[in-house]
Amino acid sequence: MRITNLIRSKEEKAITPRKKAGAPPGTMVYTGQRSMDDVHVHLTQYHGDFFDLQTCQDEIPDPRSEGATQWFDVRGLHDIGLIERLGKQHGMHPLALEDVVDVQQRPKMELFEGGVLIVVKAFAFNSTTRDLSIEQVSIYLTEGTVLSFQEDAGDLFNSVRKRLETSSGRIRSRGADYLAYALVDNIVDKYFTVIDQIEGELDKLEDIIMRSPEMSTKSKIHDLRLALLTLRKSISPLRELMNRFGDTESKLISSDTQVYVADLRDHVIQITDLVETYRDVTNGLYDLYVSEISFRMNSVMQTLTIVSTIFIPLSFLVGVYGMNWQYMPELGTRYGYFVLWGVMISVILGMLGWFRSRHWI
Amino acid sequence: MRITNLIRSKEEKAITPRKKAGAPPGTMVYTGQRSMDDVHVHLTQYHGDFFDLQTCQDEIPDPRSEGATQWFDVRGLHDIGLIERLGKQHGMHPLALEDVVDVQQRPKMELFEGGVLIVVKAFAFNSTTRDLSIEQVSIYLTEGTVLSFQEDAGDLFNSVRKRLETSSGRIRSRGADYLAYALVDNIVDKYFTVIDQIEGELDKLEDIIMRSPEMSTKSKIHDLRLALLTLRKSISPLRELMNRFGDTESKLISSDTQVYVADLRDHVIQITDLVETYRDVTNGLYDLYVSEISFRMNSVMQTLTIVSTIFIPLSFLVGVYGMNWQYMPELGTRYGYFVLWGVMISVILGMLGWFRSRHWI
Amino acid sequence: MRITNLIRSKEEKAITPRKKAGAPPGTMVYTGQRSMDDVHVHLTQYHGDFFDLQTCQDEIPDPRSEGATQWFDVRGLHDIGLIERLGKQHGMHPLALEDVVDVQQRPKMELFEGGVLIVVKAFAFNSTTRDLSIEQVSIYLTEGTVLSFQEDAGDLFNSVRKRLETSSGRIRSRGADYLAYALVDNIVDKYFTVIDQIEGELDKLEDIIMRSPEMSTKSKIHDLRLALLTLRKSISPLRELMNRFGDTESKLISSDTQVYVADLRDHVIQITDLVETYRDVTNGLYDLYVSEISFRMNSVMQTLTIVSTIFIPLSFLVGVYGMNWQYMPELGTRYGYFVLWGVMISVILGMLGWFRSRHWI
Amino acid sequence: MRITNLIRSKEEKAITPRKKAGAPPGTMVYTGQRSMDDVHVHLTQYHGDFFDLQTCQDEIPDPRSEGATQWFDVRGLHDIGLIERLGKQHGMHPLALEDVVDVQQRPKMELFEGGVLIVVKAFAFNSTTRDLSIEQVSIYLTEGTVLSFQEDAGDLFNSVRKRLETSSGRIRSRGADYLAYALVDNIVDKYFTVIDQIEGELDKLEDIIMRSPEMSTKSKIHDLRLALLTLRKSISPLRELMNRFGDTESKLISSDTQVYVADLRDHVIQITDLVETYRDVTNGLYDLYVSEISFRMNSVMQTLTIVSTIFIPLSFLVGVYGMNWQYMPELGTRYGYFVLWGVMISVILGMLGWFRSRHWI
Amino acid sequence: MRITNLIRSKEEKAITPRKKAGAPPGTMVYTGQRSMDDVHVHLTQYHGDFFDLQTCQDEIPDPRSEGATQWFDVRGLHDIGLIERLGKQHGMHPLALEDVVDVQQRPKMELFEGGVLIVVKAFAFNSTTRDLSIEQVSIYLTEGTVLSFQEDAGDLFNSVRKRLETSSGRIRSRGADYLAYALVDNIVDKYFTVIDQIEGELDKLEDIIMRSPEMSTKSKIHDLRLALLTLRKSISPLRELMNRFGDTESKLISSDTQVYVADLRDHVIQITDLVETYRDVTNGLYDLYVSEISFRMNSVMQTLTIVSTIFIPLSFLVGVYGMNWQYMPELGTRYGYFVLWGVMISVILGMLGWFRSRHWI
Repeated sequence: MRITNLIRSKEEKAITPRKKAGAPPGTMVYTGQRSMDDVHVHLTQYHGDFFDLQTCQDEIPDPRSEGATQWFDVRGLHDIGLIERLGKQHGMHPLALEDVVDVQQRPKMELFEGGVLIVVKAFAFNSTTRDLSIEQVSIYLTEGTVLSFQEDAGDLFNSVRKRLETSSGRIRSRGADYLAYALVDNIVDKYFTVIDQIEGELDKLEDIIMRSPEMSTKSKIHDLRLALLTLRKSISPLRELMNRFGDTESKLISSDTQVYVADLRDHVIQITDLVETYRDVTNGLYDLYVSEISFRMNSVMQTLTIVSTIFIPLSFLVGVYGMNWQYMPELGTRYGYFVLWGVMISVILGMLGWFRSRHWI
Repeated sequence: MRITNLIRSKEEKAITPRKKAGAPPGTMVYTGQRSMDDVHVHLTQYHGDFFDLQTCQDEIPDPRSEGATQWFDVRGLHDIGLIERLGKQHGMHPLALEDVVDVQQRPKMELFEGGVLIVVKAFAFNSTTRDLSIEQVSIYLTEGTVLSFQEDAGDLFNSVRKRLETSSGRIRSRGADYLAYALVDNIVDKYFTVIDQIEGELDKLEDIIMRSPEMSTKSKIHDLRLALLTLRKSISPLRELMNRFGDTESKLISSDTQVYVADLRDHVIQITDLVETYRDVTNGLYDLYVSEISFRMNSVMQTLTIVSTIFIPLSFLVGVYGMNWQYMPELGTRYGYFVLWGVMISVILGMLGWFRSRHWI
Repeated sequence: MRITNLIRSKEEKAITPRKKAGAPPGTMVYTGQRSMDDVHVHLTQYHGDFFDLQTCQDEIPDPRSEGATQWFDVRGLHDIGLIERLGKQHGMHPLALEDVVDVQQRPKMELFEGGVLIVVKAFAFNSTTRDLSIEQVSIYLTEGTVLSFQEDAGDLFNSVRKRLETSSGRIRSRGADYLAYALVDNIVDKYFTVIDQIEGELDKLEDIIMRSPEMSTKSKIHDLRLALLTLRKSISPLRELMNRFGDTESKLISSDTQVYVADLRDHVIQITDLVETYRDVTNGLYDLYVSEISFRMNSVMQTLTIVSTIFIPLSFLVGVYGMNWQYMPELGTRYGYFVLWGVMISVILGMLGWFRSRHWI
Repeated sequence: MRITNLIRSKEEKAITPRKKAGAPPGTMVYTGQRSMDDVHVHLTQYHGDFFDLQTCQDEIPDPRSEGATQWFDVRGLHDIGLIERLGKQHGMHPLALEDVVDVQQRPKMELFEGGVLIVVKAFAFNSTTRDLSIEQVSIYLTEGTVLSFQEDAGDLFNSVRKRLETSSGRIRSRGADYLAYALVDNIVDKYFTVIDQIEGELDKLEDIIMRSPEMSTKSKIHDLRLALLTLRKSISPLRELMNRFGDTESKLISSDTQVYVADLRDHVIQITDLVETYRDVTNGLYDLYVSEISFRMNSVMQTLTIVSTIFIPLSFLVGVYGMNWQYMPELGTRYGYFVLWGVMISVILGMLGWFRSRHWI
Repeated sequence: MRITNLIRSKEEKAITPRKKAGAPPGTMVYTGQRSMDDVHVHLTQYHGDFFDLQTCQDEIPDPRSEGATQWFDVRGLHDIGLIERLGKQHGMHPLALEDVVDVQQRPKMELFEGGVLIVVKAFAFNSTTRDLSIEQVSIYLTEGTVLSFQEDAGDLFNSVRKRLETSSGRIRSRGADYLAYALVDNIVDKYFTVIDQIEGELDKLEDIIMRSPEMSTKSKIHDLRLALLTLRKSISPLRELMNRFGDTESKLISSDTQVYVADLRDHVIQITDLVETYRDVTNGLYDLYVSEISFRMNSVMQTLTIVSTIFIPLSFLVGVYGMNWQYMPELGTRYGYFVLWGVMISVILGMLGWFRSRHWI
C-alpha cells in the first residue's frame, strides 16, 4: 500500500491539490479523482404501501408523488453544477455543499438551519494488494427528504434499497430520519467486513512468520499497519458524531430513531475497540517478526561458529605438517601421522562437548 | 493461539459472518458456533426454606411455585425459537433478545423497561495450548426472576446453585437482584483463576528465557500477549458496567445488594490493574528475550572471532613454508622450524592477552 | 536538518540568545535573525468599492481615507522603533509589542484592552534539504484596523491582497475582523502544502527502503521526524487558539465571521490529525528500515555460513593429504585421490540438503 | 525476582488460591502465607502523661484505663477467630474484617459506620536478591481506638511506639486520628528507603553496563523493572486514598490532623513521581544495555573482518605456490619468493589503509 | 551523569538520608549537602528613591528603615537555628520552615496564614560532564517582606539586585509581591539557558552519530536523557504552581503583578513544551544511533562475506592440487596450472557479478 492512500490515491494527488489554497471559503471545488463516468441520480420515493424508483443520468429527477419520503442518491461528485442545483432545491447551505464535494473531509456531523449534514467514509479492502480504498459519502437530512452523495458509481446502499422495495423490517413505515440512520448503519456494518478481512490477513501473516519469514513479510506488516491507521483516522471521529446524532435536539430526528442510533453508537465503539486491538496485534506481529529474524540469525551464526571453530584449528595443524622444512623431526616418526589423527579427533570431540555444554547443539 | 481467537474461534468464522450485514436491526441471529447439542433449560426456584430444581431439554419448564424467586438457566443459544418464547414470557425487549444471541457483543449493561440486561464474557485458559476460550453469558434480571443464557452446556454457575441448595451464606433469603449479582460475581471470580494461570505461564517463560531461549519461546510470549489483549478487551468495559450496576436508580436492585456490587467493582478494578501489570510484565519478558538472544549472539560471535583471529594468521604462516619455491633460504636453516613455533606461540599468547584486555575471555 | 531548526536557525542562535535573560518584562528585543534588508510597510485600505495600496520603506504610510478598513502589513521586525511607533499609534499594549518582536513565541491569542493579538507560525518545507523554515507572523486586530507583522520580505499574504483588489468573494464588504480571519486562514492553508510535501518525501522513502536502503536513509527518516515534531509543536496550540478566536466575547469579532472561524477550526483539527498520523507513519517507516537491515544482514550471514561450512571442512581434508609425513599409507593407493573426491562431493551434497531443509537456500 | 512476587510469594500461592472462588462474600479467609508463629497483640494506651504497654500472645489484652487512647497492634493474621473477636469488640463490619485477612487487597480506604478502614502495603527491598517483599497492613480507626493488623511479627511501628513512650513531638496529646495518621506516615516514609535502595541498584547497574555488561545484567534490569512495577501498583491507589483521608467528612478525623494528612499527600505524590522517573531510568538503562551489546558486537565483527579479509586472500596466495604441478614456471625463478612477500605486504598495507579510511581501526 | 543526580548528589546521599524516617513531622532537618561555608544573609531595602543593602555573615541584619520593602536573601541552609529565628521573626509556620531546609521537595506553592511559600529548583548544566546540578530555592512572601533561601553562596539573583539598585524597569516602585515574582521569573529565565545548552549538546551528538558513532556516544545520549528527565520532574509541577500563583485570592499578590505572572506562566508552558520536544529528539537520536550501528554492522558483514565467499572456495581448490597423492593424473598435464588459474578467475568474476546483483558492492 502506498502511504498516500492514507488520504487519497496517487491519481487524485496528481490532478488536484489537497486544498484550493487561497480560494475564498464557500467555493465548491471537487477535490477527488474526477471520474469520466456520468453522474447518476436515483430518486426513491416511498410511503406506506407506495414505492417508486427513478434513475436519471446527469439530471435531477422530478418527484412524482407529494407526501412520500424522498431519497435522492447522487453517484459521482464531479458535476458541481448539478449538485449545486439539487442542493439549492432542498435549501442546503453553501458551506454544506462545499463539504459534500471536498472529499478530504474528516467524518463529521453538522447542524445547519433546516437540515443536518453527515459526512462519513466507506471502505473496501483488497486482500491481494492489501490496499484500502476510501470513498466519502455525505448524507443530508432535511424535512421528509434525504440526499446522499457518493463518489463512485458502485452501489453502497443496495441492501437498504432492497429493504425499502420489499419493505422488510419496518423501514417503509418510518420517516426520512430512519432512512438516514439506515444509510449510516449500512456503511458502519461494512466496516466489520473490512476488519474481518484485515483479521484474516493478520492470521496468514502469523502463520508465515512462524513457519519462515520472507522478504515480503515486513512490507505486508507495514501495509496492514497503514490500513489500520487509515481506519482509525476515519473511525475515531465517528464516536463523537454518533453522540451528536443521538443527542441532537434537532426536531428532524424522532425519539424512535434515536433508540436505533444508540445501538449504532455501540457498534461504532466496538469497531473502535477492534481497530485498537488489531493495531496492538500488528505491533505484536512486528515484534514477533523481528525476534524471529534475530533467532534465525543467531542459529545461523552458531552453525558457522561451530564449523569454523572446529575446522580452522585443525586446518592449521595439518598445515603445520605440510611445511617443507628440511629439518622437521616429527615427520620421520613411524606413527606420527596416526598420533596427529588422534589429537585431531580429540579436539573435535572436546569442541563438540563444549558446544553442547553451552546449548549450541 | 490464533489471532482470530481474539474475537471468536475459526469454526465460528467459517460458519457465520461477524454481523448479519444489511439485515434490519432487531433480527435475532445466533452469531456463535452452532453447537449440535440440545438446549438445556434449568429452572431453580427458592424462597426461604423452599428449594426446587427442574431440568428440561429443548423446552421451557413450568414454574411449580408462585411467589418464589425463579432462575431460568439456558445452556445453548442456537434454538432461537425457544429463547424468543422464554424472553417474551418475561417481557424481554426484542433488542435485548437480539443481544443475547449475538455473541460478538461488547460486555455491557442496558436498562430496558421492566428489566436489566447484563452481558459479560466468561473465560477459560488452556495452559497447554495457551488458548483463551471465550463464552458470552447474558443475565436478564426482571421482577422476581433471573434469566441466564450460556453458550455451552458446561456449568459455570455450579457453585451458586450449590449455595442455593445448601443455603450457605444468606443467598436464599435474598431476592432476584442478589442472585443476578451472585452470577456476575461468580464469573468475575473465575477471571482470577485465568490470571493466575497466565501468571504461572509467565513464570515458566521467565525461567526458560533465563536458562536457554528456545525456538518456541517467542511464540509463547506472543500467545500470552494475545491472551492478555483479549482479556483487557473484555474486562475494561466491566468497570463502567459495575458503576452503572451499582449506581442504577432502577428499583430492581435493592440498596442491600448495592453494597455487594460495590465490593464486586473493587474486584473488577483489581483485575483490570492485574491485566495491565501483566501486559507490562509480558513486554518486559519480550525485551528480556530479545536482549538474551543479542547477548548470546554476541558471545557466539566472540567465540568465532577469537578462534578465527588466532588460527587464520597462523594458517597463513604455515602456508608460507608449505610453498614449493626452489629458492626459499629459510627452509634450509637448522632451527627454522622451531623458531617458527616460537613465533606462533607468541602470536597466540599475544592474541589471548589482547582478548582478555577487551573482556572477551 | 539540524535539531536547532526545531526552534530557530543556527545563525539566529549565534547572534542572539533565546531570551534576554534578566531584562525586565516589557522590553522589546528582536530575538530573530536580524535581516539586513529594509523594513517594508504596506498599507491597504478598502471599503466597498474603494481600494488603495501604499508601500513605504522604513516609514509608516499615512492613511489617505477615513472610514475605510486599514491593513498595515509590516515585513521585517528588526526596526524596533518603527514597530513601536506603529503600535502606539493603534494603542497596542507594551506586552503585545514585546510579543511581536520576540519570534520565539508559542502560537497564542491574547486579548488586550482595545485589541486582540494573534501569534502564529508560517512554514516552508524545502524538499531537497528536508529543512522546515519557520516564520513568526503576528496579527493585531483593533477597531477597523489590522496590523500584520512578518519576519521576511516574502509575501505570505499575496492571495488575500489579490482577493481584496479584485474583490473576489465578499471580502471587501466585510470588516477588519474578517480580514484578520482571512490572514490566519491563508497561513493555515499553507500547512496543507507543507504536509503534502512531507507526504511525498515519506512516499519516496518507502520506495527506497523497499528497494535498497542506503546510508542516508536513516538520516532522512530522522529529518522528517524532526520536521513533524516541529510542526506539531507549532500546530497543537492552534486548536486552543481557534476555540478562543471563535468563542471570544470581544466585540471586535462579529458573529458572521465566527461561522468562518468554526470552519477554520475544523481545518486545524484535520491538520493536527494528519501530523499525528504521519508521525505514526514515520515510526512505521523506521521499523521497516530496521527490519529491512536485519533481514539483509541475516541473508548476508546465511551466504557466508553456507560457503564457509561447505569449504572449511573440505579445505581441512585436502590439507590432510598435503602433509609430508614419511609414512602415510593412503597416499600410495591407486584410487585414493578419486575416493577423496567422492567423499568431498558427498559432503557438499549433504550440506546443501541440510541447508535446504532449514530454508537457507 | 520471580514474577509471582508481584502479587505474593510462591509459598503463598502453593497453599492458598488467590481468591476463595465461589465462597459467599463476607467469609473471612486468610489468603497469605500462614505463618507458624504465634499471634502477638500489643495494647498501647496513652493520654497526656499516662503511657502503658501490654503484650499478649494469642489473646486480646484488656484495657486497664478508661478514657485513654487505645492502640491494639495485631501481628500475624492467621488466627481468624482472635481477629474476629477483636473486631467485633470494636464494632468492625464483617466486610472490613474480610478485607483485613485477605492480603491480596488493593490499597484503599473505606468508610464504615463508626469507623474507617485503611489498607496499605509495606515494602522491604533486599538488595542482594533484588527481591521486593510485600506486607499488607490494615489500620482501623474508630472513636478513641486504633486497631492495626500486620502480617509479620517484625515491628513496623517501632518509631511510633518510641515517640509515644518518650512523647517526642506532640503525639501523646493528640487523639486516635493522629495516631492513625502517624502509622500511615510511618509506612509511607519507608517507601523512600526502598526507592533509595532501588536507586542505588540502578547506579550500580549503570556502572556495570558502562564497564562491561555481564550475562546477569539483563536479568538485574528485569528484576528492578518488576520491583518498580510492583511499587507502582501499590502506590498509585494511595493518591486517591490520601485525598479521601484528607477530605473525608467523617467526624473521626479532626481538622488539626487533616493539615498533616495534606503533608503526607505531598509525600505520596513525590513518591509516585519518583517511581515513574525510575521506571523511565530503567527503560533508559535497558536501551543503554542493548546498544552497548550492539556496539560490542559491531567491534567484535570488525576485528574478525579485519583479520579475515587480510589473511584469507594471503592464505590463498601461499596455497597457490604450495601446489604440486609439474609445470609451474614461477617456482623456478630466483626472486619469486621475495616478490611474493612484497605483493603480500602491499596487500596488507592496502587493506589496513582501506580499513582506516572506513574508521574500523 | 550519575542517576543519583536525578535527585541529589552522591555526597548528599552519603551524609544524610533522603528523609528523616520516623522523625515527627515539623522537625527541621537540612537534607542537602552540608556546606562548610558560612551562611550569608543579605538584606535589601528599597522604597521609591531609597535603596539600601546590608550583608551579614551568620547573623540576621537589622532593618534600618521602616516602611521600605524588605528582602532577606539567605545563602546557605545548614544553620538551622538562624533560619528558624529569621522565620519566626516574620511569622513563618513550622511546616514552611521544614520545607525550606528539606531540599528534596517537589516544586510547589503553599498558602499559609500570613504568607505564601514558593519552592522552586534552579539548574546549571555543565556541558563538559553533561551534569545537571540542582539547587532548591524557597521564596517566602509576607506583608512587605520577601525571604529567599538558597543552598549555595553563588548569587542567583544578581540581575534582580542590579535592577533594584539602578531602578531599571519599574521594579523599585512596586511592592514585595512584584519582587517575589521577579525572583521566580529570574530562575525560570535560566531554564532557557539550560535548555539551550542541552540543545547544543544534542546538535553535537547528531553530528557525531552521522559521522562515526563512538564508544561514548550512547552514554552521552543516556546522560542527556537523564538531564531532560530531571528537568521535566522539576518543571512539570511549575505549571500548576503558576496557576495557583496567578489565581490566588490571597491579598498578598496585587492584580498588577498577576498580569506578569500570567506572562511567566506562558514561559513555563513553553519550557515544558521544549523539554517534551527534546525528549522526543533524544529518543530519535537513540534510534538513529542504533540504526547507524546496525547499518555499519551490515556493511562490515558484507565485506567479510564477500572476501570469504570468494577466497575460501579458491583456497580449497589450490589445496586440492597441493596434495601429495602418488597418483593424481592432472598434476602431470602441461597446461593444468594455467587452466586452474582460468577457472579461479572465472569463479572470482562470477562471484563479483552475483554480489553486484544483490547490491552488496
